[in-house]
Amino acid sequence: MSWLDEVPWNGHDLIAVVTQDAASGKVLTVAWMNREALQQTVEKKEAVYWSRSRKKLWRKGEESGHVQKVLEVRLDCDADAVLLKVEQAGGIACHTGRESCFFRKLENGKWVTVDPVLKDPALIYKR
Amino acid sequence: MSWLDEVPWNGHDLIAVVTQDAASGKVLTVAWMNREALQQTVEKKEAVYWSRSRKKLWRKGEESGHVQKVLEVRLDCDADAVLLKVEQAGGIACHTGRESCFFRKLENGKWVTVDPVLKDPALIYKR
Repeated sequence: MSWLDEVPWNGHDLIAVVTQDAASGKVLTVAWMNREALQQTVEKKEAVYWSRSRKKLWRKGEESGHVQKVLEVRLDCDADAVLLKVEQAGGIACHTGRESCFFRKLENGKWVTVDPVLKDPALIYKR
Repeated sequence: MSWLDEVPWNGHDLIAVVTQDAASGKVLTVAWMNREALQQTVEKKEAVYWSRSRKKLWRKGEESGHVQKVLEVRLDCDADAVLLKVEQAGGIACHTGRESCFFRKLENGKWVTVDPVLKDPALIYKR
């Protein structure tokens, strides 16, 4: 049996993927993978997700250059999730130009943006 | 508008929640919350999830004592996820008695258990 068969794919044949910067420990993104995305991620050692909105494989960084080099792949006990530890090219994982997608923090009943934009998205996606 | 209304609840009125140890940076669990679970989590400053299998609120640690004290709550840009930074009571988040639920690592095409059991689950859930 392949290691891919041991992944608890959900009803949509997807699994949630938490991606963490291996050096800083920051949680960068939560995204989704199907079987092919996970297989390609492991083979290429670069994160490939399944875009639920575009319904296609999405090689992280294909437009932005912000590729995620995969150092480690982990599976959890039962909650149906994969954890990737990566080296984040450019130090930017979020399409808003921030290091992490989790840049809003709950403070006194409000979601407050607490992390800076490191690069203007207009410059990241300028092609 | 309440901060709860700004959360992008999915079709099942749930959101995925990544929980990270605030001190070590380890990703401990991925679980789910509904609106009430998130509200209680913020009010009590202790993690309360929605158990999809048991279909009820699940105060983390209610049986095991392994409560998660919530230090920070973050929301991501668009992937529909919440990040909690917590202090993990007992240093054990997983029902298998391990620190993290992500104790299996992909090595040469196999999921290998790489993290130790810190406490026998039979002792954790002995009541």
